[in-house]
Amino acid sequence: ARTGDPEVVLGQGKTPEQVASIMAALHEAHPEQAVLATRLDDAARAHLAQALPAAELHHEARCATLGPLPPARGTVTVVAAGTSDGPVAAEAALVARVHGAHVERITDVGVAGLHRLLAVRERLEEADCLVVVAGMEGALPSVVAGLVGVPLVAVPTSVGYGASLGGITALLAMLNSCAPGVSVVNIDNGYGAAVHAARVARQSAGAQA
Amino acid sequence: ARTGDPEVVLGQGKTPEQVASIMAALHEAHPEQAVLATRLDDAARAHLAQALPAAELHHEARCATLGPLPPARGTVTVVAAGTSDGPVAAEAALVARVHGAHVERITDVGVAGLHRLLAVRERLEEADCLVVVAGMEGALPSVVAGLVGVPLVAVPTSVGYGASLGGITALLAMLNSCAPGVSVVNIDNGYGAAVHAARVARQSAGAQA
Amino acid sequence: ARTGDPEVVLGQGKTPEQVASIMAALHEAHPEQAVLATRLDDAARAHLAQALPAAELHHEARCATLGPLPPARGTVTVVAAGTSDGPVAAEAALVARVHGAHVERITDVGVAGLHRLLAVRERLEEADCLVVVAGMEGALPSVVAGLVGVPLVAVPTSVGYGASLGGITALLAMLNSCAPGVSVVNIDNGYGAAVHAARVARQSAGAQA
Amino acid sequence: ARTGDPEVVLGQGKTPEQVASIMAALHEAHPEQAVLATRLDDAARAHLAQALPAAELHHEARCATLGPLPPARGTVTVVAAGTSDGPVAAEAALVARVHGAHVERITDVGVAGLHRLLAVRERLEEADCLVVVAGMEGALPSVVAGLVGVPLVAVPTSVGYGASLGGITALLAMLNSCAPGVSVVNIDNGYGAAVHAARVARQSAGAQA
Amino acid sequence: ARTGDPEVVLGQGKTPEQVASIMAALHEAHPEQAVLATRLDDAARAHLAQALPAAELHHEARCATLGPLPPARGTVTVVAAGTSDGPVAAEAALVARVHGAHVERITDVGVAGLHRLLAVRERLEEADCLVVVAGMEGALPSVVAGLVGVPLVAVPTSVGYGASLGGITALLAMLNSCAPGVSVVNIDNGYGAAVHAARVARQSAGAQA
Amino acid sequence: ARTGDPEVVLGQGKTPEQVASIMAALHEAHPEQAVLATRLDDAARAHLAQALPAAELHHEARCATLGPLPPARGTVTVVAAGTSDGPVAAEAALVARVHGAHVERITDVGVAGLHRLLAVRERLEEADCLVVVAGMEGALPSVVAGLVGVPLVAVPTSVGYGASLGGITALLAMLNSCAPGVSVVNIDNGYGAAVHAARVARQSAGAQA
Amino acid sequence: ARTGDPEVVLGQGKTPEQVASIMAALHEAHPEQAVLATRLDDAARAHLAQALPAAELHHEARCATLGPLPPARGTVTVVAAGTSDGPVAAEAALVARVHGAHVERITDVGVAGLHRLLAVRERLEEADCLVVVAGMEGALPSVVAGLVGVPLVAVPTSVGYGASLGGITALLAMLNSCAPGVSVVNIDNGYGAAVHAARVARQSAGAQA
Amino acid sequence: ARTGDPEVVLGQGKTPEQVASIMAALHEAHPEQAVLATRLDDAARAHLAQALPAAELHHEARCATLGPLPPARGTVTVVAAGTSDGPVAAEAALVARVHGAHVERITDVGVAGLHRLLAVRERLEEADCLVVVAGMEGALPSVVAGLVGVPLVAVPTSVGYGASLGGITALLAMLNSCAPGVSVVNIDNGYGAAVHAARVARQSAGAQA
Ligand SMILES: Nc1ncnc2c1ncn2[C@@H]1O[C@H](COP(=O)(O)O)[C@@H](O)[C@H]1O
Ligand SMILES: Nc1ncnc2c1ncn2[C@@H]1O[C@H](COP(=O)(O)O)[C@@H](O)[C@H]1O
Ligand SMILES: Nc1ncnc2c1ncn2[C@@H]1O[C@H](COP(=O)(O)O)[C@@H](O)[C@H]1O
Ligand SMILES: Nc1ncnc2c1ncn2[C@@H]1O[C@H](COP(=O)(O)O)[C@@H](O)[C@H]1O
Ligand SMILES: [Mg+2]
Ligand SMILES: [Mg+2]
Ligand SMILES: [Mg+2]
Ligand SMILES: [Mg+2]
Ligand SMILES: [Mg+2]
Ligand SMILES: [Mg+2]
Ligand SMILES: [Mg+2]
Ligand SMILES: [Mg+2]
Repeated sequence: ARTGDPEVVLGQGKTPEQVASIMAALHEAHPEQAVLATRLDDAARAHLAQALPAAELHHEARCATLGPLPPARGTVTVVAAGTSDGPVAAEAALVARVHGAHVERITDVGVAGLHRLLAVRERLEEADCLVVVAGMEGALPSVVAGLVGVPLVAVPTSVGYGASLGGITALLAMLNSCAPGVSVVNIDNGYGAAVHAARVARQSAGAQA
Repeated sequence: ARTGDPEVVLGQGKTPEQVASIMAALHEAHPEQAVLATRLDDAARAHLAQALPAAELHHEARCATLGPLPPARGTVTVVAAGTSDGPVAAEAALVARVHGAHVERITDVGVAGLHRLLAVRERLEEADCLVVVAGMEGALPSVVAGLVGVPLVAVPTSVGYGASLGGITALLAMLNSCAPGVSVVNIDNGYGAAVHAARVARQSAGAQA
Repeated sequence: ARTGDPEVVLGQGKTPEQVASIMAALHEAHPEQAVLATRLDDAARAHLAQALPAAELHHEARCATLGPLPPARGTVTVVAAGTSDGPVAAEAALVARVHGAHVERITDVGVAGLHRLLAVRERLEEADCLVVVAGMEGALPSVVAGLVGVPLVAVPTSVGYGASLGGITALLAMLNSCAPGVSVVNIDNGYGAAVHAARVARQSAGAQA
Repeated sequence: ARTGDPEVVLGQGKTPEQVASIMAALHEAHPEQAVLATRLDDAARAHLAQALPAAELHHEARCATLGPLPPARGTVTVVAAGTSDGPVAAEAALVARVHGAHVERITDVGVAGLHRLLAVRERLEEADCLVVVAGMEGALPSVVAGLVGVPLVAVPTSVGYGASLGGITALLAMLNSCAPGVSVVNIDNGYGAAVHAARVARQSAGAQA
Repeated sequence: ARTGDPEVVLGQGKTPEQVASIMAALHEAHPEQAVLATRLDDAARAHLAQALPAAELHHEARCATLGPLPPARGTVTVVAAGTSDGPVAAEAALVARVHGAHVERITDVGVAGLHRLLAVRERLEEADCLVVVAGMEGALPSVVAGLVGVPLVAVPTSVGYGASLGGITALLAMLNSCAPGVSVVNIDNGYGAAVHAARVARQSAGAQA
Repeated sequence: ARTGDPEVVLGQGKTPEQVASIMAALHEAHPEQAVLATRLDDAARAHLAQALPAAELHHEARCATLGPLPPARGTVTVVAAGTSDGPVAAEAALVARVHGAHVERITDVGVAGLHRLLAVRERLEEADCLVVVAGMEGALPSVVAGLVGVPLVAVPTSVGYGASLGGITALLAMLNSCAPGVSVVNIDNGYGAAVHAARVARQSAGAQA
Repeated sequence: ARTGDPEVVLGQGKTPEQVASIMAALHEAHPEQAVLATRLDDAARAHLAQALPAAELHHEARCATLGPLPPARGTVTVVAAGTSDGPVAAEAALVARVHGAHVERITDVGVAGLHRLLAVRERLEEADCLVVVAGMEGALPSVVAGLVGVPLVAVPTSVGYGASLGGITALLAMLNSCAPGVSVVNIDNGYGAAVHAARVARQSAGAQA
Repeated sequence: ARTGDPEVVLGQGKTPEQVASIMAALHEAHPEQAVLATRLDDAARAHLAQALPAAELHHEARCATLGPLPPARGTVTVVAAGTSDGPVAAEAALVARVHGAHVERITDVGVAGLHRLLAVRERLEEADCLVVVAGMEGALPSVVAGLVGVPLVAVPTSVGYGASLGGITALLAMLNSCAPGVSVVNIDNGYGAAVHAARVARQSAGAQA
């Protein structure tokens, strides 16, 4: 991959054996650099534990890494409302770290409990880039973007039922945020948000040094 | 209409002449009770000013009334984020009053400016029923319902562009509110929300007396 | 949760073990107040029967409660057309009771058999708030709201096939009710409707005393 | 056209001049049979009044006819809830007559006022085929089909706003009717419903003689 | 049910035990009349074979009947393009017979092989009502309705993949048929089409006698 | 543009003055080759008549050409059901000619009148590529592709109302054609279909020489 | 089937036994010609290996063939971006060969790695028809059609998650290609694209001889 | 607004008089800072030319500014494919400048003409943040993000017809980009993209100094 960025394997749609052999091959080619695999189901992670013991498993994020992580510059802060959004937030956090940023996580700060959100305002301000994860009505990014002027990437999740339409409602809501500067990625795409955020954080880091 | 409720004429899809003559006929049949006409465009209101000088015109709400309003019991508080949502909020406020409730209005309290919302928390608590109007991402009802336990009806508006889908996004978001107890009406339907809210307010009024 | 309201655990998306331990913890913190868990599948309810014998299981409603229910004030009447809508109606009934209202249930009153509906008109009138549950074409709330002027929350269900679109058709129909004052919640969201209805009923109860 | 059926010109998408000359040509070819033109806007009807004085204009139905109507056999009864559905109901009524059936019309019988519907039950029973027209939530066909076992064609109309989606909501609701035997045509397609109904009525007429 | 019509149990959403006991109870109440159960999966039919040996199982149609069928008057002809549409066509055929009509079936007459369709034109003409079943692009009803002037009910099926959208494409196509007089029912709803068609056929039968 | 292909200006979204000056500039740069402008409204064509008298106007196709057409090889046959589809068929025919193919047109051959279609079967067979244009239920391409094995491009049109969804229904139907080998372009995109078809026809022409 | 075209069996929706017996029967009737079966799941292919040993299994393409392939004329080149699109590309390649064309395959040329695509430009030019397969944002056909003027059929795949909507996004994108001459088939329909492409290639082959 | 950010007035949904008076009031309150008005139609800009001569009009961007622009740090590069996307690109460029970034514009680099895009690769690399604007199939952001690793915000536009669905197709395509790190804003929302991009650019600028 592009210099500085790790190689990434999309686990979804591949057999556990395919994931293991691709990770091994990429690691052999560039042992000095991390290999990341995302969207690994339980079977894939179980297989990797056996077949590739050098790999590190990240169960909440449903990911695996192999090889040394890059040094970290700048800070990506990942914010999520509920525990159901945990896997997507965990994926975003891991991916941002693997792409060279420091990572902070803030959890349990939904729009229906504003005081918890107001209590972390300072931590939000200190981020170089925010990744805000939310399902259902997807209102959290608007509220966060109304509090601080930090670049923000919103990740809708498929958490919900009925008229949540598998995450389409949260996606649409985020695209219509009345707070300026909110950009959005695909449903459950913690990976994509984190790549964007890590690039912003790394660029910004030098400026503050 | 049902005893206590005024007769209502839906102006949309009728000519100005039709609206005027229906209002006049209903007024003649029940002069002691208000007649309300909604969704009147500029031409319809201009015609009524000439043809039915006894009618009162409510330009922001795009409505007209004829005959005495009922006494008011209980309080409906209508909350809106932006000036673009003004006409729908005004319709809700007028309709709640015409259906026998006291009405309060709170404006300019969008989710991107939380301090203004927190500043009116007490007024929100005092309502018997809240009508919360919002367009775009439709997040305001979730935030309000996270602050106070008052019965709340959310009204999505067609304000927005692109992926706001003429109000569908706000509607879907409100239906997926993570705050419990939010009920929702059709896009731009300040009328329907206010009828529900006025019934709740009138019922509750006796309790507090 | 807000004073008077019980703590609620959304079972969907949690393991049976997580549900049991969260319920136990909340109960320990507030033993004088009910804890409610909703959207529990068969496995979760079976686990609770073992792990938390003090909990009461509500199989039709797919819920569990732990701790004493609050005293009841005011009446929520839950109306449903068919047996397929039973689980959603049962959830609404339980939740309304847990949130402090008396509950009545009326079943088997679909729009294709009007005489059964006309026969219960008086019971509908006596409610402080109605919760009307229907799938397929979702017509029942319109018909009920045309009979009585009681505040009404409509719950679309995912019952149906083909063009019922998993409940979207019933949802859209209810939002477009030609009877005024119908407010609507998410598909299969008996919980949300009942929270709204119980608040209205409790407020109204004092008034009638 | 098929023997017994009149020639029909779809006015929409044609200039007034085109409509007039096609009607004149068809009439000249078959002067003993009716020619029907549908979906004529005001300009088209005004032009026909001048250019084709022998044509009869049907303003509510937005149609014109030229030449003698066929004898009528069997009865199509057209039922509609509101005045806004009037043009579609009028089109259905005219088309059924032009296709050889007697026509009855029942109006102002919406689902929110059941007593008016129950009062006409006998007239519904006497029809050979019912055409039931409704907009908004499209509930009327379900209620009618629950009252009488007559073959019924439902016509959704584009009357409504917001989540009525230009008639899609009424269409979906009618397709999901819980009353058996309801068949449905396109939004605002009074024409298609009436052709089906007139065929059924004509077939049935002999049986009763 | 309405005199002359059998009692019908919708199997979908009921346990095999529930279906068996409802059928038994209805049969006991009206032993002189047929009871019909639809949408029975393999498990339900296997259970009925054991629990209710007097019931007749209709495997292709996924239905069961109990008790004597009514005498048949008039003819419903069920037309289908492909073998994948077989179950829906079989359901329609059985239901029409159970509702008192003679039934004919025509199969393997898709729009991509017109000669087979032209070869059965006479049989199409002889029907009192046609039920035309088709999936994918749903074109068959238009072609049939262009050939004969018989009342026609179109049934879209969920056969297809990708942009067939589970039958929505066929449904939309049928609603937009350029041939007049096509009426439509829900996706895979052979039941509803057959109830309508049997009523038309029974009414028409007397006429021809 | 690519050698052999004319320069094409998309008129939609440009002022008449912009279209005229772009056409003039392209013509000056390559006077030996045709310039084509598409999607010109009445005002644009009127302006071109004045400002660019050397341009040829094609009113039904809503296009203009300037400069000599290329020699023609191979035959594209454009088939359309109704007169409402005329402008799209005319655009396809002109564009195919401008892109170097001979063009044949067959009109008035809808699926509801099969005999007219069967009568032209031989002309369909003789084409090197077919462009089949249809609105409403979009069934014509399936029927044509069931008759002849010629490469076929289907063009859905926005002709229709209600559930035709501005051409989406015809588009979906064509994508689900049960006849193999049907490929599809955007709604009303006679231009794109003709570019594809002309390429196929030109390639095929040498083979037959 | 049409002379020169093989008989094709759509495996989806049929039992393994049905597929085997239909293939055997067609082969017996026309032993000199290939029979093709598509959309065979693992069970169906395993059954064929036992029941019809003379059949050739094509596992990546999920197909089986029986009997001699026709001679090949002209070249269809199948282009795909990722390994996830492999099965659809393999189906297209096999089907094109079975329908009488030579086949080339180009893989791993996604839009996010343009140099790989530019490196194969000459091979793209040499094709008589291109089949371009892509999922997710479906951009590959636009880029390929911007490079070469060869007739091109685009196949959207259901590869992706969230807002890929099961392939609808790729389908819509391809229909809106800004490069002219792109025609499109249903999601995952490698079969349909290949039938179109093989017809074009066979026609074109003579021309180049 | 937040320190450093200008006050912004959304012109859409306001009268020209309202825009002029709000701009004047904000300017008076903070004369040292820019006021920006967006989405101004021709009438609004004409009124401002008269009523507020000190305002600067930006016709392509449909905006107006009043008061001194802030100093610029870091570079936002705005990339667009076609002239139809010009207004959205111009809005993005102006807004980025008003929010404190240097701005570069690259135009006429669509995916159907890759060489023009490859020729500007170096300019793309030099940006601190990219804003990539595209309509129709929305493929440009994927191609650009495959070339350079710069943070990128994609803006779908409503340019197109038929299945472009008013920009929904481009929006969906961008959300599914196979190139990592693409974030997306609402259709035609050059404003939102630029606010995000300017924040990134300003943060990054110090780092490079
Ligand atoms: N979770 C993810 N979501 C979206 N894209 C991903 C994800 N993980 C990896 N990718 C992308 O997929 C590419 C690898 O795809 P593949 O070659 O099929 O493994 C990577 O370069 C990423 O751009
Ligand atoms: N703004 C509105 N939105 C929705 N429904 C309305 C509105 N105004 C009036 N209505 C309903 O329309 C009915 C009157 O319709 P009409 O008889 O056509 O004037 C009233 O009884 C109300 O239930
Ligand atoms: N296959 C079917 N599709 C649609 N509706 C059906 C079907 N079978 C039965 N019904 C309807 O469902 C009603 C019985 O529903 P239930 O009481 O739940 O068994 C019958 O009266 C029919 O109107
Ligand atoms: N009617 C049309 N539909 C779709 N694309 C078109 C049409 N006419 C022209 N185009 C495309 O638009 C390009 C020219 O766009 P422009 O440079 O904006 O005039 C041409 O090269 C064609 O590829
Ligand atoms: Mg949330
Ligand atoms: Mg808002
Ligand atoms: Mg129902
Ligand atoms: Mg109605
Ligand atoms: Mg079919
Ligand atoms: Mg057509
Ligand atoms: Mg792709
Ligand atoms: Mg583009």
